[in-house]
Formats: sequence, structure tokens, C-alpha cells
Amino acid sequence: MIRHTVAFRLKHPSGSAAEQDFLRAACALAKIEGVQKFECLRQTSLKNSFTFGLSMEFANEAAYAFYSEHPEHSRFVQERWIPEVAEFMELDYVTCVP
Amino acid sequence: MIRHTVAFRLKHPSGSAAEQDFLRAACALAKIEGVQKFECLRQTSLKNSFTFGLSMEFANEAAYAFYSEHPEHSRFVQERWIPEVAEFMELDYVTCVP
Repeated sequence: MIRHTVAFRLKHPSGSAAEQDFLRAACALAKIEGVQKFECLRQTSLKNSFTFGLSMEFANEAAYAFYSEHPEHSRFVQERWIPEVAEFMELDYVTCVP
Repeated sequence: MIRHTVAFRLKHPSGSAAEQDFLRAACALAKIEGVQKFECLRQTSLKNSFTFGLSMEFANEAAYAFYSEHPEHSRFVQERWIPEVAEFMELDYVTCVP
């Protein structure tokens, strides 16, 4: 299991139609083959400046790469993410058994 | 559901006994009442400098507060987290339905 997450803040005003439209477009990424447990999240800690998050899981590196290179993902990044996201941080996780 | 996560990097060398000991101590936090879906994670993205993560869920704000204020959590923060963690970022999430 690989969990791919990204915390982000939009350029749009909080509660705006543009914000909702962006989040709905992001949720469409869940339909890409191999994406599991897709979640749209609101970031609530006051200890950072991010306001939303996305989380999804992949069975393995191949499935993650298929998603990353998928034309629908690339188009979303170019047409929505880059112009509309003010700041973001990607965090990817695998299970750790100490 | 409130998902409390923290990404972090230890002062200890990668693969060291001290690293393992810290992670095992962190895992003991899972026993605090109200902690659900506790996960010890390795952070694998090269787009940030964190190397581990913890994730847990709480049913509500009261359960989260009970954890935060629990003596075992406070002791862990004072005796292990502050002296052994080089950098960290907390991210808390709730479900968002756009």
C-alpha cells in the first residue's frame, strides 16, 4: 500500500463557488484506474496554513505511476492545480513496523 | 471523524536502534482511550524532508482533547518528542463533501 496525500490552500475565497468547483474537479481523479480509498478532506489544524487535503491509496508503485502519468491527472494539474492552488505539500506514506 | 496526523524527521540516524526505540514508544500512544486506526508510517516522497508519520483517528473533538491532554501523551511529548524530533508538521483532517 502506498498512500499519496497532498495538503493545499486554494487562491479562491473560502466558501466560494470557485472553491467548490475545484474540489469537485479534484474528486473526479478518483475515477482513474488504480486509485483506492480516495478522500477529499478539510484541514483543520491551526498549526499550518493548509485548508484542504486529498488522500488516495495505490496497491503498488506501478499503480501510482499509472495515476501520475494518466492524461486526466496531467490535465487536472495543468488546467486546475497550477492556476488555482496557492501552496501545497505532498506526503506519501507506506506502513512502518518498528 | 477527525484524523490527526504528524509528519516528522528524527535526529537519530536512519536505521538506528534509537530510531526504532522512538517509533516503538510512539506506537504505545495507540493504547490511549479513544485512539482509533493508529498507524506508524514511513514518509517516502522526495518532495519534502520528513521521513516518518503517525496517523490516528478520533470520533469527535472530545476524544481528541482527551488524547491531547492525557498524561501518557504529555509525557511522550516531553520525554521523547521534543528531544528526539528534528522537525515536524501536524495536519488534521475531517471529511469534506464538495
